[in-house]
Amino acid sequence: MRVRLTLEYDGTRYAGWQRQENALAVQQVVEEALSKLTGESISVTGASRTDAGVHALGQVAHFDTSSRIPPDKYAYALNTLLPPDIRVRSSARAADDFHARFSAVGKRYRYLIHASAHAGALNRLTHAHVIYPLDLAAMRAELPDLVGTRDFKAFAASGSCVKDTVRTVRSAEIFQEGGEFALFVEGNGFLYNMVRIIAGTLISVGAGRLAPGAFRRAMETKDRLDLGVTAPAHGLTLMQVFYEGDRL
Amino acid sequence: MRVRLTLEYDGTRYAGWQRQENALAVQQVVEEALSKLTGESISVTGASRTDAGVHALGQVAHFDTSSRIPPDKYAYALNTLLPPDIRVRSSARAADDFHARFSAVGKRYRYLIHASAHAGALNRLTHAHVIYPLDLAAMRAELPDLVGTRDFKAFAASGSCVKDTVRTVRSAEIFQEGGEFALFVEGNGFLYNMVRIIAGTLISVGAGRLAPGAFRRAMETKDRLDLGVTAPAHGLTLMQVFYEGDRL
Repeated sequence: MRVRLTLEYDGTRYAGWQRQENALAVQQVVEEALSKLTGESISVTGASRTDAGVHALGQVAHFDTSSRIPPDKYAYALNTLLPPDIRVRSSARAADDFHARFSAVGKRYRYLIHASAHAGALNRLTHAHVIYPLDLAAMRAELPDLVGTRDFKAFAASGSCVKDTVRTVRSAEIFQEGGEFALFVEGNGFLYNMVRIIAGTLISVGAGRLAPGAFRRAMETKDRLDLGVTAPAHGLTLMQVFYEGDRL
Repeated sequence: MRVRLTLEYDGTRYAGWQRQENALAVQQVVEEALSKLTGESISVTGASRTDAGVHALGQVAHFDTSSRIPPDKYAYALNTLLPPDIRVRSSARAADDFHARFSAVGKRYRYLIHASAHAGALNRLTHAHVIYPLDLAAMRAELPDLVGTRDFKAFAASGSCVKDTVRTVRSAEIFQEGGEFALFVEGNGFLYNMVRIIAGTLISVGAGRLAPGAFRRAMETKDRLDLGVTAPAHGLTLMQVFYEGDRL
């Protein structure tokens, strides 16, 4: 039976989602809990290979098992075995051909920024801190240039070897509350580091260090150097993964 | 010279604000940083003796020093010495008779609750988790009974020896977003554990485990047993301390 998990985690302690040789990854922790629970050797496939420090409120993963544990009970059972910074939000039976990564038709990310002379204590693990004020209107004015089906070649981490760099961004929004800014980006898929490059570019434009029209220019030149730096991992949260048949 | 600090901290690692024999308190960490900075032995007085696990976004403290460091520079200098879970938001010269605790004319607290079948990973250090749904309207209907100048005798932690239990609650509000609830209470002062007892009572009423009118009954009987349990410390955040002359 194939089972689908929706996972939440605080990425602070982890070397990202994907299992690694010399560092603890979320995938490994979940696999060990599942193996303990079922008595089988379980492999888990995640929708997104979130980087070290990146958080998730809605990572999706699947695994196969012969266990007779009812699929909706995995959430409860795993949460008794997992550390408190990894939680299963729900579990359900999935179709045999469901694949957490390849069946995904979209993802939604959040990037949080704290603009203030001093860093915060309570938000230090979820917000990127910048010491200068940011202009919400200037950042918001960039967003329409992101939305649509476009070649995001300039938005790929340097050294990336992905050939098809065309992606569809369905929505991009930014909100401010005091010194805290929340960026939400939703699309059919994202290049490696793409959301963090978008966030870093918006920070540069919002701080007046990069001229307005940065996204538009980079779409034309396809040059990574026309965009801002890659914003830190810990500001990023994978909010949701979408699949055909999900109620959007 | 007397200096006033506004402090933010994540209370998770600390045995509360007040210096203790065998556990690390926020006061001690701040005093050690100040002593290192000034070369003097500095005592810091906080507005509120927050308990172990309680957070602050707006704790206020004062200290006296002969150092010639400009008072507004303490925030920057201390933040280079303090651990990232304690931050100084601002520093300023205070009047010689300013006292962080005794000059305070009011405080504002926040209590965060996460009502969901499963605990959260990202909000686990700031939200009290309850596994049952809560009825916002039922909780909100209790709040007018808190506001005003009343005898909060029933709202004091058992064993408390405070004689005057009359306090003025200026406002009490609760908001919901999905499974997360945020309670804000502001008043001229609070008895020990009073906000956590208010939160625990609202949780009981919201879950249908305590009949409506709980606060009103407890005001009449003055009996602690007519209220809910004391909600956990880590849901509580000291938001702001008010002083005469502050712009409210």
